[in-house]
Amino acid sequence: MSRDVDASADGDRYIVHAEDLTPGRVIQLGSYTVWESEIIEFATQWDPQFFHLDPARAAVESQFGGLIASGLHTLSIYQRLWVNSRTRPWRVIAGATMSDVAFIRPVRPGDVLTGYTVIENVRLEPDKHRGCVTFASVLTNQHDKPVLRVTASVYLGARTA
Amino acid sequence: MSRDVDASADGDRYIVHAEDLTPGRVIQLGSYTVWESEIIEFATQWDPQFFHLDPARAAVESQFGGLIASGLHTLSIYQRLWVNSRTRPWRVIAGATMSDVAFIRPVRPGDVLTGYTVIENVRLEPDKHRGCVTFASVLTNQHDKPVLRVTASVYLGARTA
Repeated sequence: MSRDVDASADGDRYIVHAEDLTPGRVIQLGSYTVWESEIIEFATQWDPQFFHLDPARAAVESQFGGLIASGLHTLSIYQRLWVNSRTRPWRVIAGATMSDVAFIRPVRPGDVLTGYTVIENVRLEPDKHRGCVTFASVLTNQHDKPVLRVTASVYLGARTA
Repeated sequence: MSRDVDASADGDRYIVHAEDLTPGRVIQLGSYTVWESEIIEFATQWDPQFFHLDPARAAVESQFGGLIASGLHTLSIYQRLWVNSRTRPWRVIAGATMSDVAFIRPVRPGDVLTGYTVIENVRLEPDKHRGCVTFASVLTNQHDKPVLRVTASVYLGARTA
């Protein structure tokens, strides 16, 4: 979305900077359906363990009784939802840290994950023309049970830059 | 690798369980070269922000002066190296948590990442026939500079199970 925005003075006022994000604000992240084919595809490339790859073997040998998504896959779904939730472009510089990542419950084929994030903290660094914004997020499944918890800190440009 | 292992009594002795992992042990994770095409492919699916997608725009607008990999991509490379570093199959149940994930420096096209992990803690849970093993890991680039730090806890089956 941010690709088409004019970064002129007018465009810049429209773009969300670190100061525009207020602690306590809740942002809905929307939903994402996780299909078996994607679980296997992701795991084949990044996390080749049988309980992410082989439905038949997972049904017999995994404690979860079937295929489950890689935690990295679930985290990537969170990231995609987080990026796509923006209604205006954000002046993101880069991710800084993640803490308190918890893979609370298995994510299974057909699960529909729905997320929200709460802006937990905004720490401005005026000398670096940026701010570090901390987001506390949860993904829940279609049974309203949390499957992922993650706290992530991201640098955004400051409006004073 | 674990797909071909006989899970009979003999096979089971060969498989690494929670008790077989000793705090302080260092495991080399090998290396992985990150190409521009993969950075763009990963970001297109999971982290569609311009500094992960558009080399020309990143060269002009990003503080890093060029394309950088998504942090999720770097974390996924760590996971792949971690899985593929096993010389014997491990009785992994599932990932539990990640803490202290730090995207220390940008990962750029052509970077060669090399990793190691240290077994930080093994907490056996005999009543659940499992142990929670904590790995403290670092990926460095070809200039010997750290790019990723991550502490991850994983459940492994216990030998007594």
